[in-house]
Amino acid sequence: MKLVPHRVLPWRLLALPPQVRVRAFSSTPSHLEIKPVHDLPPRLRPSYVPSPNNTLLNLQWPSPPRNILITKKKRTPNITASVLEFISHIRSTYPAINILLTPETAAEIHDQLPFSVYTYENVSDLPDKTDLICTLGGDGTLLRASSLFSHAESVPPVLSFAMGTIGFLGEWKFREYKRAFREVYMSGAPDTYATLSDSLGPPPPPPPTSPSDPLDRPLSYADIRGKAMGPNRTARILLRNRLKVGVFAPDGSRIGNSGDTYALNEVTLHRGGSPHLKIIDVYINNRFLTEAVADGMIISSPTGSTAYSLSSGGSIVHPLVPSLLLTPICPRSLSFRPLVLPANTPITLRLGTKNRGREVEVSIDGQTVTQGMGVGMEVRVAGEEVKKADGVWEGGVPSIVRGTAGGGEDGEDHWVGGLNALLKFNYPFGDQEGG
Amino acid sequence: MKLVPHRVLPWRLLALPPQVRVRAFSSTPSHLEIKPVHDLPPRLRPSYVPSPNNTLLNLQWPSPPRNILITKKKRTPNITASVLEFISHIRSTYPAINILLTPETAAEIHDQLPFSVYTYENVSDLPDKTDLICTLGGDGTLLRASSLFSHAESVPPVLSFAMGTIGFLGEWKFREYKRAFREVYMSGAPDTYATLSDSLGPPPPPPPTSPSDPLDRPLSYADIRGKAMGPNRTARILLRNRLKVGVFAPDGSRIGNSGDTYALNEVTLHRGGSPHLKIIDVYINNRFLTEAVADGMIISSPTGSTAYSLSSGGSIVHPLVPSLLLTPICPRSLSFRPLVLPANTPITLRLGTKNRGREVEVSIDGQTVTQGMGVGMEVRVAGEEVKKADGVWEGGVPSIVRGTAGGGEDGEDHWVGGLNALLKFNYPFGDQEGG
Amino acid sequence: MKLVPHRVLPWRLLALPPQVRVRAFSSTPSHLEIKPVHDLPPRLRPSYVPSPNNTLLNLQWPSPPRNILITKKKRTPNITASVLEFISHIRSTYPAINILLTPETAAEIHDQLPFSVYTYENVSDLPDKTDLICTLGGDGTLLRASSLFSHAESVPPVLSFAMGTIGFLGEWKFREYKRAFREVYMSGAPDTYATLSDSLGPPPPPPPTSPSDPLDRPLSYADIRGKAMGPNRTARILLRNRLKVGVFAPDGSRIGNSGDTYALNEVTLHRGGSPHLKIIDVYINNRFLTEAVADGMIISSPTGSTAYSLSSGGSIVHPLVPSLLLTPICPRSLSFRPLVLPANTPITLRLGTKNRGREVEVSIDGQTVTQGMGVGMEVRVAGEEVKKADGVWEGGVPSIVRGTAGGGEDGEDHWVGGLNALLKFNYPFGDQEGG
Amino acid sequence: MKLVPHRVLPWRLLALPPQVRVRAFSSTPSHLEIKPVHDLPPRLRPSYVPSPNNTLLNLQWPSPPRNILITKKKRTPNITASVLEFISHIRSTYPAINILLTPETAAEIHDQLPFSVYTYENVSDLPDKTDLICTLGGDGTLLRASSLFSHAESVPPVLSFAMGTIGFLGEWKFREYKRAFREVYMSGAPDTYATLSDSLGPPPPPPPTSPSDPLDRPLSYADIRGKAMGPNRTARILLRNRLKVGVFAPDGSRIGNSGDTYALNEVTLHRGGSPHLKIIDVYINNRFLTEAVADGMIISSPTGSTAYSLSSGGSIVHPLVPSLLLTPICPRSLSFRPLVLPANTPITLRLGTKNRGREVEVSIDGQTVTQGMGVGMEVRVAGEEVKKADGVWEGGVPSIVRGTAGGGEDGEDHWVGGLNALLKFNYPFGDQEGG
Repeated sequence: MKLVPHRVLPWRLLALPPQVRVRAFSSTPSHLEIKPVHDLPPRLRPSYVPSPNNTLLNLQWPSPPRNILITKKKRTPNITASVLEFISHIRSTYPAINILLTPETAAEIHDQLPFSVYTYENVSDLPDKTDLICTLGGDGTLLRASSLFSHAESVPPVLSFAMGTIGFLGEWKFREYKRAFREVYMSGAPDTYATLSDSLGPPPPPPPTSPSDPLDRPLSYADIRGKAMGPNRTARILLRNRLKVGVFAPDGSRIGNSGDTYALNEVTLHRGGSPHLKIIDVYINNRFLTEAVADGMIISSPTGSTAYSLSSGGSIVHPLVPSLLLTPICPRSLSFRPLVLPANTPITLRLGTKNRGREVEVSIDGQTVTQGMGVGMEVRVAGEEVKKADGVWEGGVPSIVRGTAGGGEDGEDHWVGGLNALLKFNYPFGDQEGG
Repeated sequence: MKLVPHRVLPWRLLALPPQVRVRAFSSTPSHLEIKPVHDLPPRLRPSYVPSPNNTLLNLQWPSPPRNILITKKKRTPNITASVLEFISHIRSTYPAINILLTPETAAEIHDQLPFSVYTYENVSDLPDKTDLICTLGGDGTLLRASSLFSHAESVPPVLSFAMGTIGFLGEWKFREYKRAFREVYMSGAPDTYATLSDSLGPPPPPPPTSPSDPLDRPLSYADIRGKAMGPNRTARILLRNRLKVGVFAPDGSRIGNSGDTYALNEVTLHRGGSPHLKIIDVYINNRFLTEAVADGMIISSPTGSTAYSLSSGGSIVHPLVPSLLLTPICPRSLSFRPLVLPANTPITLRLGTKNRGREVEVSIDGQTVTQGMGVGMEVRVAGEEVKKADGVWEGGVPSIVRGTAGGGEDGEDHWVGGLNALLKFNYPFGDQEGG
Repeated sequence: MKLVPHRVLPWRLLALPPQVRVRAFSSTPSHLEIKPVHDLPPRLRPSYVPSPNNTLLNLQWPSPPRNILITKKKRTPNITASVLEFISHIRSTYPAINILLTPETAAEIHDQLPFSVYTYENVSDLPDKTDLICTLGGDGTLLRASSLFSHAESVPPVLSFAMGTIGFLGEWKFREYKRAFREVYMSGAPDTYATLSDSLGPPPPPPPTSPSDPLDRPLSYADIRGKAMGPNRTARILLRNRLKVGVFAPDGSRIGNSGDTYALNEVTLHRGGSPHLKIIDVYINNRFLTEAVADGMIISSPTGSTAYSLSSGGSIVHPLVPSLLLTPICPRSLSFRPLVLPANTPITLRLGTKNRGREVEVSIDGQTVTQGMGVGMEVRVAGEEVKKADGVWEGGVPSIVRGTAGGGEDGEDHWVGGLNALLKFNYPFGDQEGG
Repeated sequence: MKLVPHRVLPWRLLALPPQVRVRAFSSTPSHLEIKPVHDLPPRLRPSYVPSPNNTLLNLQWPSPPRNILITKKKRTPNITASVLEFISHIRSTYPAINILLTPETAAEIHDQLPFSVYTYENVSDLPDKTDLICTLGGDGTLLRASSLFSHAESVPPVLSFAMGTIGFLGEWKFREYKRAFREVYMSGAPDTYATLSDSLGPPPPPPPTSPSDPLDRPLSYADIRGKAMGPNRTARILLRNRLKVGVFAPDGSRIGNSGDTYALNEVTLHRGGSPHLKIIDVYINNRFLTEAVADGMIISSPTGSTAYSLSSGGSIVHPLVPSLLLTPICPRSLSFRPLVLPANTPITLRLGTKNRGREVEVSIDGQTVTQGMGVGMEVRVAGEEVKKADGVWEGGVPSIVRGTAGGGEDGEDHWVGGLNALLKFNYPFGDQEGG
């Protein structure tokens, strides 16, 4: 795969404020550096607007997004080439956009780019600077991108491209990237408002500006000519609710210094390398349910229902079912079936006193977070509420899904598509007819 | 078990309007007849009011309920004795109440009662005359009571007593019947309003009356002295959402003349007595999902998740998770796992053309509704929405659950209790310790 | 697919006894009839000889097989064409062979053949006249062929060709038919004996002959020149053990007049069209095991483990594991796991007295054998022993499997192949790497 | 529980050779030591003789057993008391018997005994010195006793007492210990031979003796008067076949210095503490079956089918079914069902090259045997053959089962009993009747 050369169309240049233009296209070596995330303008927060007859939400930017975090699957050369192609397209088409990369990716590719990129030292700086996340890889890539925001209540929208692997989370095919990015970028432009305004109300106010910093001047859709895509092109959002996870030591003190952690897929208690089964006390709604003797226990979101929970015998739960899954791992019982509970149910898993001398391992989204937790430790979980009491939708991981806002016959339900990919394995065995 | 004799406390008599009193306690033979349901006053419709911090609803009668439908498990002598005891208590304590029975029960017991009872010829008369349903038996008894309202959009509240069998639906123990009935009867009395009024708003208007019919004069809680139970005693309601099921012939015409049927547990397509597997086309959201080769297919409500769906490998879903379950029965595929979908998902099951000459059987809540359905027939299902767009809760089967409205430490979650009964079987096999 | 014209090579004609030659190639209309099975010479019974280091047996004919029963999948035109091609090849290459067809197939194709075929009115005539069975179709075709011998203790060897469908039983690809048939036909020829004689002992004695009937003169391998294939080409046999099934009325009398029935796959008790669960008492080794509340119960052979039992959650059992599977169908219990028992374990399923007024359906290999069986009826099953006390292997369904008798690196295990076809569905879901 | 004091009946003393008597009852402090296993006479090897109409074998000692290894569950005080009671009974009733204990048990209890006990430093000394094993505890106790012989081809018979826990392996109740031990001890005494001799042939020759060592003079049943129990009292043996496990490094060298290890329950490959799934290549009969992406893989004996394999979804397999189970642990595939293979099937699990940088953990019977095994390592397994080519039964773990040799109506099948204990959980959920 060849790197698409840097190329800017004249009419687009004119639409941009001069400061941005100059800065963006300067190609002196001094600019080809990796810049700190602190230099970026503050994050733009979009609204998520319900549409009638559709369970998905409409993405509405107050002004065009500027800071794009791009993550990719590791150690896969042809994905690196795709990332370079993607970045080049974005910068040439939307020159005001700033490219934010993980430290590894920045180090790997920045010298192949004729402009500066941004990176961070501490993931805690990302939530205030990232307008949009784009991932290129598989479900695991999105999962890792999400984990960069595992301590943030508000995650930016995620546009994820599946690179060759079948998954439930990577919504878009990479060959669609130009159309997909434009759809997201323009979602909220005036033409869209005009058509949607009746049902959606007025657009959100523009973000606060600091006049002294030209970079911080928000771009306006009015500056971008000729890009009206019509209301059907509004990007659609699926707010995937996460799990809010707290891990507590036997003395009640919290493990980890930064409050709750959000998990997109699941939190797992597991015996790990110990050959001994764990005896886990399970509490639902703060009431004792049962003592599970098992290799471990999974608490999963609907999004995670097609990951580890499915391997352990859990059902497949659509991401729009507000629920939590409690799935035992290899239980020493014939009757402990997976449970599906309301999303707001508090669940506590406790390593009971019968586990004398035994330790357990806690993992969040496939990353081991604590080892050697002993008797008395607790994992407390509740689902994240994505619809607030005042009717505002926020929280969760806002995933940009394929298909049109209007839905209709020609729309696509990516989840059913992913399910079909699973169920292509639904080929009947044997000879079903008996002829 | 002995029949408690007919006995009325004087102070209670005084509280009643004279007409009712006379009529109720007349014991001339001419009154000991079985009367038609048409003679009953019209149904009182309660409100279901959300309470903060609680996922259950509060029951609020506009005025005391009058028409009580009582159903019982068949062919079980000691349950018949309990029914007689229950009826005698109600009539002696709340003399204005009219007892409505199924034709079989009325025939079986009316001559053991010193007052008239009501029955019906056609179940379609019940929805307009039944204020409250009381069931004595097991889950199956409630299921059958619910099926009497399978064509009604609005089902009266159900107070169900478990008679010896462990179940998920029969919430109350029979020995609690006096307290339980009073809690339901008084739910909405002035003392309750006084306390709840801030959050709950004004009580619902009293029902329309027809002055010419003394029976139709609504009883007022003001007529009943000394029964204030406080707001914590408001009966709590779990609105169990049902499935809306339509069965269609290959030519698109509806099978059955009375519109959609509501199922509390599940609708099932099954090969029945035919030894041949069925080939069932499954559509979700009007999009083709897969062709299932199986003994059959279950679409279940969360309430039904602990019935047939569980036998077929489905997960256990809490009744407050707004969802539908799609569970294959003995699929000829290793990969067709049970699915949990949003409650408002339209699902269509279609007997595809490959089933040349084969027929299928459709059952709703365990009752066979059609046999001999052939190629091209369709079952169309969607979950019932129990929260309307205007925020009013209605629809579903309003189940009166145990525990106090305030919840709290001493409240009980019947579902977790039922689960515990299942999970008492969560006794670990073998010797888990290896010592 | 074109019918291969009738064509005989001269050298082969010379090798045949004149009677057969004349009779076989007479093409006067009077011979193109469908002849009765009684006209055929008696069956030849082969030996099954164990080979060291191999769990399969070697097929050894006393003299070349003469009566070939050919069955095919119904209602599939291109299989009919293949059957015609197959028959033409056999008759032109091995003119002494008699073609025996089912009545339906005989009626369908006999007028497209330039020689007479045989058929039967009563399946009970088949066991004494059939040397070899060839099936063209899927697993169901072999299953139906096997059911023609469901009352016979000794089933002839079966050569089965899979016609397009993936299965576990259809061993051969149709395009291999010439080589496959020759391998089977020659299995036991002198060259083979010469090489195998040390380990195998002397060949079985030739069958008894009736000199007055020229048709009954056994063909000798000495009459067939130039066909030595060497010991590695001996056909290999997998003796699939069957289930011996007896169905008994509540009074202990046997249902059906012809003794035990043999099932190749499974016997099933099922609720059939009744919506009610059955309560089935299960006895193992004549001791009560449990009372199963279920849709039904399957007792399966290892061969049947990839059929209905697999749909119901049973394990996949290799056909060489001498065992029976007891698999519940949709049990109303969370703990009734499928059991695998020694092949000689007597199992009894009894419809207990709690099933008042309920009936059950019994099926053998997918065919309903009794309906309306009521309380007290019993199904008694034991596996067939294929190795007799005196070390002789017989019984079961002798399936001719692909691969060489010597096994070795280039041999194939058809079962693993069928498993691979199942496990091609073993494609991992999701993105297993997390990169 | 009180320690039964040391007490010897006179008539029994007379029956013993004087040397043994003197040595055994000396109670000078110098004898109350822990002696080395080397001082014991050599092991007596019993025969296992098939009986007609019974799948179990009859135990036949050449002369009374002398060296008894006793193991017990750890850290359970009341079991220690039972062990003391048991030992005291044995020594007082059968004074010639030598008590062999594990080092821990010897250290714990030897000063509470008025005679010397034996112990070992190296488990490799046990197979040549142990006539009989008695275990007091649960399934885990027997499992650990069996693991003391995990490098021995021939395991002594095991008499196991279940101490309070339900299990599949602990056959006897402790309160039966006197009868149980006598039955085992006398199994093969002359009266037994007299009755069984026709079917069983001559008794095995007495063991070789070294006349210089009085201890090595074999005891004869003729020395023991009055103990004829009749043929029905012959102890019955279930030979539980084990798994023969070899672990190999990527370079083909064997891990561990002592050849194959025998597992009674299972060998497991598991991801252990690593959060990453393993990619395991599975070979059956030296042919590639599939690449499994999973938490791990279990190869289990039928005995182990009710342990870890059952937790992972495997079927329950009777210990007399000669088979191996291949059960995946949390496979990332919907179609990888547990397999049951012939006992002599070679299975290889290989950590494929896709696991770059990942390690796996190997456990045998719940004990981790290797950690940190990397890409290319292999586990090779085959079932142990317990019936040799010459018709002799040996190998496996000879478990002494309850019940009489004649079987019959009053015999008991311990396995069905254990299954009942599991299936007591077969209590139906919900209300199966629908009344």
